[in-house]
Amino acid sequence: MTGFAVDPWRLSWQGADLDHLDRAESAFALANGHLGLRGSLDEGEPVGLPGTYLNGFYEEHALPYAEAGYGYPEAGQTVVNVTDGKIIRLLVEDEPLDMRYGQTLEHRRTLDFRTGILSRETDWESPTGKRVRVRSQRLVSFTQRAIAAIRYEVEPLPDERGTKRVQLVVQSDLLANEPIESHTRDPRVALALKSPLAGEFHWSENTRAVLVHQTRESGLRMAAAMDHELEANEGLRTEIACEDDLARLTAAVDVEIGEVLRLTKYIGYGWSSTRSAPALRAQVEAALAGARQTGWDGLVAEQREYLDDFWEVADVEIDGDEELQQALRLGLFHILQAGARGESRAIPGKGLTGPGYDGHAFWDTETFVLPVLTYTVPDAARDALGWRHSTIDLAKERARVLGKAGAAFPWRSINGQECSAYWPAGTAAFHVSADIADAVARYHAATQDADFDRAQGTELLVETARLWASLGHHDPHDGFRIDGITGPDEYTAVVDNNIYTNLMAQKNLDEAADACDRNPDVAEQLGVSTTEVTAWRDAAAKMRVPYDELLGVHPQAEGFTEHEEWDFEGTPDDHYPLLLNYPYFDLYRKQVVKQADLVLALHLRGDAFTLDQKARDFAYYEARTVRDSSLSAGTQSVVAAECGHMDLAYAYLAEAALTDLYDLHSNVRNGLHMASLAGAWQAVVAGLGGMRDHGGELTFAPRLPDALERVSFRMCFRGSRIQVEIARDTATYRLIAGDPVRTAHHGEAITIDTDLTLAIPAAPDYPTPTPPAGREPRRRSKAGSTPPS
Amino acid sequence: MTGFAVDPWRLSWQGADLDHLDRAESAFALANGHLGLRGSLDEGEPVGLPGTYLNGFYEEHALPYAEAGYGYPEAGQTVVNVTDGKIIRLLVEDEPLDMRYGQTLEHRRTLDFRTGILSRETDWESPTGKRVRVRSQRLVSFTQRAIAAIRYEVEPLPDERGTKRVQLVVQSDLLANEPIESHTRDPRVALALKSPLAGEFHWSENTRAVLVHQTRESGLRMAAAMDHELEANEGLRTEIACEDDLARLTAAVDVEIGEVLRLTKYIGYGWSSTRSAPALRAQVEAALAGARQTGWDGLVAEQREYLDDFWEVADVEIDGDEELQQALRLGLFHILQAGARGESRAIPGKGLTGPGYDGHAFWDTETFVLPVLTYTVPDAARDALGWRHSTIDLAKERARVLGKAGAAFPWRSINGQECSAYWPAGTAAFHVSADIADAVARYHAATQDADFDRAQGTELLVETARLWASLGHHDPHDGFRIDGITGPDEYTAVVDNNIYTNLMAQKNLDEAADACDRNPDVAEQLGVSTTEVTAWRDAAAKMRVPYDELLGVHPQAEGFTEHEEWDFEGTPDDHYPLLLNYPYFDLYRKQVVKQADLVLALHLRGDAFTLDQKARDFAYYEARTVRDSSLSAGTQSVVAAECGHMDLAYAYLAEAALTDLYDLHSNVRNGLHMASLAGAWQAVVAGLGGMRDHGGELTFAPRLPDALERVSFRMCFRGSRIQVEIARDTATYRLIAGDPVRTAHHGEAITIDTDLTLAIPAAPDYPTPTPPAGREPRRRSKAGSTPPS
Repeated sequence: MTGFAVDPWRLSWQGADLDHLDRAESAFALANGHLGLRGSLDEGEPVGLPGTYLNGFYEEHALPYAEAGYGYPEAGQTVVNVTDGKIIRLLVEDEPLDMRYGQTLEHRRTLDFRTGILSRETDWESPTGKRVRVRSQRLVSFTQRAIAAIRYEVEPLPDERGTKRVQLVVQSDLLANEPIESHTRDPRVALALKSPLAGEFHWSENTRAVLVHQTRESGLRMAAAMDHELEANEGLRTEIACEDDLARLTAAVDVEIGEVLRLTKYIGYGWSSTRSAPALRAQVEAALAGARQTGWDGLVAEQREYLDDFWEVADVEIDGDEELQQALRLGLFHILQAGARGESRAIPGKGLTGPGYDGHAFWDTETFVLPVLTYTVPDAARDALGWRHSTIDLAKERARVLGKAGAAFPWRSINGQECSAYWPAGTAAFHVSADIADAVARYHAATQDADFDRAQGTELLVETARLWASLGHHDPHDGFRIDGITGPDEYTAVVDNNIYTNLMAQKNLDEAADACDRNPDVAEQLGVSTTEVTAWRDAAAKMRVPYDELLGVHPQAEGFTEHEEWDFEGTPDDHYPLLLNYPYFDLYRKQVVKQADLVLALHLRGDAFTLDQKARDFAYYEARTVRDSSLSAGTQSVVAAECGHMDLAYAYLAEAALTDLYDLHSNVRNGLHMASLAGAWQAVVAGLGGMRDHGGELTFAPRLPDALERVSFRMCFRGSRIQVEIARDTATYRLIAGDPVRTAHHGEAITIDTDLTLAIPAAPDYPTPTPPAGREPRRRSKAGSTPPS
Repeated sequence: MTGFAVDPWRLSWQGADLDHLDRAESAFALANGHLGLRGSLDEGEPVGLPGTYLNGFYEEHALPYAEAGYGYPEAGQTVVNVTDGKIIRLLVEDEPLDMRYGQTLEHRRTLDFRTGILSRETDWESPTGKRVRVRSQRLVSFTQRAIAAIRYEVEPLPDERGTKRVQLVVQSDLLANEPIESHTRDPRVALALKSPLAGEFHWSENTRAVLVHQTRESGLRMAAAMDHELEANEGLRTEIACEDDLARLTAAVDVEIGEVLRLTKYIGYGWSSTRSAPALRAQVEAALAGARQTGWDGLVAEQREYLDDFWEVADVEIDGDEELQQALRLGLFHILQAGARGESRAIPGKGLTGPGYDGHAFWDTETFVLPVLTYTVPDAARDALGWRHSTIDLAKERARVLGKAGAAFPWRSINGQECSAYWPAGTAAFHVSADIADAVARYHAATQDADFDRAQGTELLVETARLWASLGHHDPHDGFRIDGITGPDEYTAVVDNNIYTNLMAQKNLDEAADACDRNPDVAEQLGVSTTEVTAWRDAAAKMRVPYDELLGVHPQAEGFTEHEEWDFEGTPDDHYPLLLNYPYFDLYRKQVVKQADLVLALHLRGDAFTLDQKARDFAYYEARTVRDSSLSAGTQSVVAAECGHMDLAYAYLAEAALTDLYDLHSNVRNGLHMASLAGAWQAVVAGLGGMRDHGGELTFAPRLPDALERVSFRMCFRGSRIQVEIARDTATYRLIAGDPVRTAHHGEAITIDTDLTLAIPAAPDYPTPTPPAGREPRRRSKAGSTPPS
């Protein structure tokens, strides 16, 4: 059981179930890419893990090394839980509403993917027998990025003693430096910061308050402000007060049974590394004024309109698996929330849903999340790439420190500086730079956005190509090699000629050359010579791709297929994830794969392999991939589908989509896995839909698994919106808006201008591969009524 | 200029030269393997780096990780500068003798390799014009391992004012927790501990005092005690006092010009992890009683006798290079000091001459130092291997944590627990276990010590063989592989089939099988089955040794010869050592070698290569080896000599021997490089002498470089003592004591029973290889009058 009710357009949780608050807080998180609120209860406690985040707002801390080395990053960054503005406490005749006490008669929370509102209904009886109904609605505005708003209603309910009226006191807070406890050694969990915010300014008057704080080490400054509208019968008394870490509006009133006390709270946030406290205060008060001008109903209407447009271009429909339907829409909603209004900031691995991975952004943003955004909300993809571009000087400096040319983008970061303290899995994973280039090329091909191409894209491609040209070398033995780096699979590190990296670098080099051909003046500004372009083309042409002739498969990197096999039979279930139970040295030297690596190359550089090779390679790696990473199932689904293993593709699709709802990695407390949610979209669109974009050409090869009756997805391409509908034997292509779209159906060129229904050819027939013992896709019933094994 | 005067049997330093005190302190360090005193001035200040060490006595500290991992060691160990007992301060008419003030008229310090005594003569004039002559002699007893002794004499000298008598006050201290300053980020330097010793007991009476301390974290306990004999004219007043960190005998007397105040100080040390303070106090007082019973003259006589015996079996004579002659004897003296009385403790990388590498022992003890001891003081080699054996349970536990069978000995440690915080250059360097096995096999072959073989040797061989059997695997492609480990070269890490490691593991497996054949009952106790022995033999037989057919050389590990070349031309001189100026990732992925790795295999497993292969491989690696490690020159010398490059062999021999006297690695402040000193011996004996011991057979192939006129060395083998004397065209073998020795001269079997003079065949004629630009052997004139470039 996920604990969540199945519904195609909503996620809801019924009942108090206080032991799973942290899971619900992540799933119910609201965000707009700039501001994120975890789905905590209005009253602040009980709470799993409190969290309010401003994208890009972090604290700095020293990275300790028992044995330091040249070029090791010295400063780490951790996302800060900023001033909490969503707290609304209630006293019912002096009894605080706290669901750990008294009796919860009814409790339901619902996140609606079409309205973007998290609503809550609670009927609660206090320890002394007073009953109230609390209804709240919360939103983080997509249209006004600094704004969150809450409508909070309390209605006294009749009780057995015949109470007529109940005294209610509502306290609405801004609270800074909430205490957070952490007792884990899991390296994936965020550092717990103690009171990271130093109070700088506080002010309150009437129904409005402002707190300004600054982080102690990174010196970033933030402001939070709140304003309120109150509706109640006569006799309402309010007061407001503030101090360094707390601002509080208190409203007290006696309310008759059946009447309602209604509070509307507007919360505004802003932060800056340069602006002064007065400037930030002015900024958040202006944001509040705008929100009050729009009003609650206006904010709700804007939200709906924004989401209607999103679903028109992005919706995925699944007939035959309601739970999967729900999970896919939840995933799309959260990806939108992560990227919609990030603007000049990164999209972190957990979006703004939790502090996992310290709030850092990784390569999976470009590789998994940006394809979704590129084909649904391309402006958000552009903004995310714009963030990378804004950090290019840091990436060039990092390359310089490492003795390389061009730009070496960080493995993990908030502000663009490398924060990875373990170089074999950080610095050495240079593929992040090729992944960024790949996202740039994809965005350009899908939008033909010439402004971006000239202002940012070409420079990103050129500087990353320069990195590869200086990282690799022509070897007298055979071709252009890239040695001593780490590919996507985190259970292998510091290897030669990782095929994924080499093929992505190959594409990066060619794309950079193409971009320079398109924009010769930009190339000249960047100091690119003909000789340099020729060298890129030459390195790309000679890129080494090792092959194991004996086994007839591609080794993930040189020597991989000669390494010892992992003893899967001898590995107990509770020893996963392996990284917490086996040393890196042993993981690295054996044929055990944490996440798709060669298989990811089969997807993203599928143009470099024949179908027979893909089928053999997929089967080989399928037997050795444990999916201790949430980045894997979606990719495995995509390649399984291409090889005709439709049931396996479906199983991995479901696992990717349900990773967080089932908490398969036991860490959803720290936030949702954006890349896994995006991987589920890939599993539908690139897997079942067979969508590929090699060389900027859009193609499809749709096919259904037995378990599903119909799958439909939508996307945009070069300004047009299309829908692809997959039935058992046919696929229908539909133009929703814009110009006709040229594409292909199973290798046959087509143009989508009106509805076009085409037969689906028989699937390729390769033997179904077998995952390692105990690491099969998580089983579940279609309806989601049985928990995964 | 080294600063040291050239003399065949002494090292002396003339003049004050206070800027180089730390170098002299290391070179003048006295030790017996149990107790070590750096060669600081008697009066304690000025001082380069104070240091008094007890072998095995360490403090523990947490190892921090910004990103932790399974199996990472949590506790580090650092050698403690224990209570300093060698301080004797002098007040001359209330002016403290301090060579930074007043005027030093004469100053000379001399370490005599035959007496084992460090002497000092200083004529000093105080700021107010009083003159004194201070003579001190210091020894750390080889025969009474807990004891150091100092004879200290002060003689007032005539001054210009006609002074008749001078008031002298001598303070003799035991001083704990001396302050040590450290401001370096060099990872090779020891952690600076602040006040590691907590006072537990202090006592003084008459001329005797005892201090007992305990370390704060590791909980080890130590005691230091002193007693004194005073000789002076009438009027001598003494008093003694003590507190937690200080005990002080004060002696005051007026001394006539030409008369002498003589103080003899006996210092006793003891430490234990289990014994109580009273027990330790009793132990050091007993040691003092013994020393006083022997008396100063007796200690001096015992020391001389011990050293006479040592030089009879160990002396190396060089005709034609006085500086080299001196350096080789200094090296032998220090190796003896490091290992003589270590008994159940390790021989640290710096011996007991300084705190470098935190006082840890590494593989170089077994690979470089123990061969010297095996062939000169075999009991010391046995004791050092006994230390390894005493830690075998820790090594087995470490193997278990790493998921391996057998015993995985630590990369660096004081007490046997792994202290390496950077696994690619620590844990992964499994060859340390094969190096220990190699040392066991060498000791056994050279001594036929059956007791050791049964009680310790076989178990060490068996448990290390088990490690290799579980680390490697039979691969369907080709043979038995050992993947993902790190060989000796620290500029390459985590590689497959490092040839050095594979060949040493091969020998380890065969030696274990041989030992089980020799001692079937021991094998049975260790649970060794016939199947297991067969598996060892099989793995050894199929051990993979990669070869580059295109280049016709052995790659150091799989793929090495395909890697990018290092840009030596573009590397400025001040960018060495490279590890302080380039990231590991880039060093690891290129063809740059810190220290002999494949070349070390050419020496230690020379039986696995033809001479042609050796010549080609040596030339290839010679062009890529930068010698940023002090472990390299000796080995390069050995293999150069075998390949007939006698001048190069001589140059590397000189570099190895003079590494510390010239401070070529700019860190002799932290202690002498025992393995480099031992490498110089290897360069003479295995290089010029061509001594090999493959398969336990002793063979020679002597040959002189042009620059030398005659070289002679001595060694013991199976209880016999022999001398090998190399002239230009002939070599003479001489039996000094014991039974005739069967050996070979340039491949011809001989028996040394009487003097045997044989012709030296012509050297092989291969082209002389070239080291990387700027990394040629350090040049110097033969007489040492010119500094190295």
